[in-house]
Amino acid sequence: MESIKLGIAGFGTVGSGLAKILEMNADRIEKRLGKQIAIKSILVRDLEKKRTVDPGKNVTFTDNVETLVNDPEIDIIVELMGGIDTARELILKAFSAGKHVVTANKHLLAEHGLELFDAARDKNVGLMFEASCAGGIPVVQTLKESLAGDEVVTLLGIMNGTANYILSEMTTKGVNFNSALADAQDLGYAEADPTFDIEGLDTAHKLCILIRMAYGVDYPLSEIPIQGITGITPMDIQFAREFGYRVKLLAHVTDIKGRLEAGVHPALVPYTYLLARVGGNYNAVRLEGNAVGPIMLHGQGAGDLPTGSAVLSDIMNLARQMKSQCSFPDNTGFGNQPLRKAKILPPEESESKYYFRFTVADRTGVMAAITKSMAEHGVSIAQSVQKGEAGAEGVPLVIISHETTTRSVDAVISEIDAMDFTVEPCVKFRIL
Amino acid sequence: MESIKLGIAGFGTVGSGLAKILEMNADRIEKRLGKQIAIKSILVRDLEKKRTVDPGKNVTFTDNVETLVNDPEIDIIVELMGGIDTARELILKAFSAGKHVVTANKHLLAEHGLELFDAARDKNVGLMFEASCAGGIPVVQTLKESLAGDEVVTLLGIMNGTANYILSEMTTKGVNFNSALADAQDLGYAEADPTFDIEGLDTAHKLCILIRMAYGVDYPLSEIPIQGITGITPMDIQFAREFGYRVKLLAHVTDIKGRLEAGVHPALVPYTYLLARVGGNYNAVRLEGNAVGPIMLHGQGAGDLPTGSAVLSDIMNLARQMKSQCSFPDNTGFGNQPLRKAKILPPEESESKYYFRFTVADRTGVMAAITKSMAEHGVSIAQSVQKGEAGAEGVPLVIISHETTTRSVDAVISEIDAMDFTVEPCVKFRIL
Repeated sequence: MESIKLGIAGFGTVGSGLAKILEMNADRIEKRLGKQIAIKSILVRDLEKKRTVDPGKNVTFTDNVETLVNDPEIDIIVELMGGIDTARELILKAFSAGKHVVTANKHLLAEHGLELFDAARDKNVGLMFEASCAGGIPVVQTLKESLAGDEVVTLLGIMNGTANYILSEMTTKGVNFNSALADAQDLGYAEADPTFDIEGLDTAHKLCILIRMAYGVDYPLSEIPIQGITGITPMDIQFAREFGYRVKLLAHVTDIKGRLEAGVHPALVPYTYLLARVGGNYNAVRLEGNAVGPIMLHGQGAGDLPTGSAVLSDIMNLARQMKSQCSFPDNTGFGNQPLRKAKILPPEESESKYYFRFTVADRTGVMAAITKSMAEHGVSIAQSVQKGEAGAEGVPLVIISHETTTRSVDAVISEIDAMDFTVEPCVKFRIL
Repeated sequence: MESIKLGIAGFGTVGSGLAKILEMNADRIEKRLGKQIAIKSILVRDLEKKRTVDPGKNVTFTDNVETLVNDPEIDIIVELMGGIDTARELILKAFSAGKHVVTANKHLLAEHGLELFDAARDKNVGLMFEASCAGGIPVVQTLKESLAGDEVVTLLGIMNGTANYILSEMTTKGVNFNSALADAQDLGYAEADPTFDIEGLDTAHKLCILIRMAYGVDYPLSEIPIQGITGITPMDIQFAREFGYRVKLLAHVTDIKGRLEAGVHPALVPYTYLLARVGGNYNAVRLEGNAVGPIMLHGQGAGDLPTGSAVLSDIMNLARQMKSQCSFPDNTGFGNQPLRKAKILPPEESESKYYFRFTVADRTGVMAAITKSMAEHGVSIAQSVQKGEAGAEGVPLVIISHETTTRSVDAVISEIDAMDFTVEPCVKFRIL
């Protein structure tokens, strides 16, 4: 029987997951497509390395890129190597050879997505990337097709399972950040080098991609404000809980009168939100369209099978287009036209409610100085808590503000951090 | 500029919603498609009726079906009339005239879907129906495309906003069913004749459609076990809460070794499930794929704009296919092949944990008789509660069982209901 033939680049977690699903669900796939999907060749760096998953007989392992991209039998190249340079070269070569590409590479797409869209358009081939954002949660497809007729008002996402797992552990067990990170690493929910996850970079890569899918414009990765979770302490988690919030690492983008406000920040989410209840290493994305209203998608954001499932959905989408002889793939969701740069709300003008935790010496005049600084910068206080005995470490003083600009917040913090009563720099988080 | 031209049948809530969105989001639509979507003609029963929404200039109202289906300028017929006979005729005529169809008509699709798929296939035209299931929640598209490569293990849905609103009111305010229904009607969340919603029929229509999308087989509507919410009392809601559950009207289907177990029933959902927290008239669907794992979609299941949004997403999907000159629409998601009948697990063999509420006279031997009957039918008791003083009305006796078959449950209830100590028939609900 005729089959769709794949050339897979990379045979790590996701590649192995894809191979497992292709075997496990072969009947289902054939029932759907009327043909099979078969792996023909797999590109790896190290041909000697022992593989835990058997991709099936008739599969050739190779360390030569040309074997994949120039094979006329291969219909679709699946890029699962990760990284920037080699993956980018491979994908560009695949396009030149007239092949469709499916990728899970969020970093590459965030950095070089526009170039890849251009190259795919030149050759009239497909570029699909559901697996690059929130694993098995179909957020790319939902934005591209299901919300095609909506204006996206706002998008909020918990899109990094490592960070969410760590915060969930800190929340449910009261442990500190380092302890929760070590647990996550033991369980395989965090890498040996977890920088991209805990510093919010991975989330920012995904946000960059979703902004393109939602708005048809490019918000350059380098301009996205990013704050990770390394500064969060059990004390903050506890204060947040007392005020009725849970701490989450959130990606957000909002259309404010035609300008996009976006960023990746730890945020206090009201406990009543479904978003606050996303636990462990699950992901969730809350989309709000001006017609459909708010919808939420929730599921596993990583792992061999969930991510493999997303890769497979793209492969099958392309297979159906090939079967229907569709001529012009729309990779961007906006008629495949080049994406112009987004109109960006300057981040310092972004408004939010804030949580501030100052650590100060227990002296007269501290509260007066802080509240004076806030008043001078137009930061209005909604709630405040000062508790705990004075110690050499200083007293925590928590203030919840009304809506205020990033500029004002940064100004207040600069002033207070410079004061001699300040024992440790202020910690601030946005409040949803 | 060239535009995609629509012929809309019906201009009630959803038709008006669609017209509003087409105007509100005209720029977005044009940016996506490179062309506009315009309503050309609207079919109504009563030309004299005053319309609250203006569909725009250049729109012709007509009461003649032929004006829609035989107009060579019209590309897509949008059926939003509801009902069976006229809608079915209209759609078949549209196919004969070579036109694509978008519909929101769950009842028609549940009763006559196979015939419609056959007729569309004959003429190589598209039939799309995202709006028929759970309003703006993209469950049809998700099953058809995003979970294309997964085997669907199970699907659970809260898909009727009226029923969920009533149960939420009963849960949060302690009111009885009739009072909650009256509130719902006042707010426009329930029809004057709410039968389809509160008896579970509307949910069953949607389940029928989703089973086809998930499994590529037909589970005939007439064979789906259906139980509505009219028998639920504040006492049940309270007992459920004490045991750690919320009461929801659930659609469910599970693949049990190749046979489908399905039904629509009120069920006790553990409070820890996200599904238990779906409030008001929101809908949610929890899908579990054997690769992607569990994913949940949550949003508004009804209303002019959410449903209009779903209709529009289908129109745009067809518009993109037309632009890409795709030849062979796959309406079923399974290669457009005729759907065979599902292998069905006989409902009496379906297993579940159950909540039983007996209402009995306060006499010796009642508990003995009930537990004896259960033991004889293999129903194992997990928990039981007997409280309240005896009154002329009888004493409520609640039993939570372990997994047991519908057959055993029905047998026990038959026996106990026939006993002379039984004051009111037993009320039973499945437990998730």
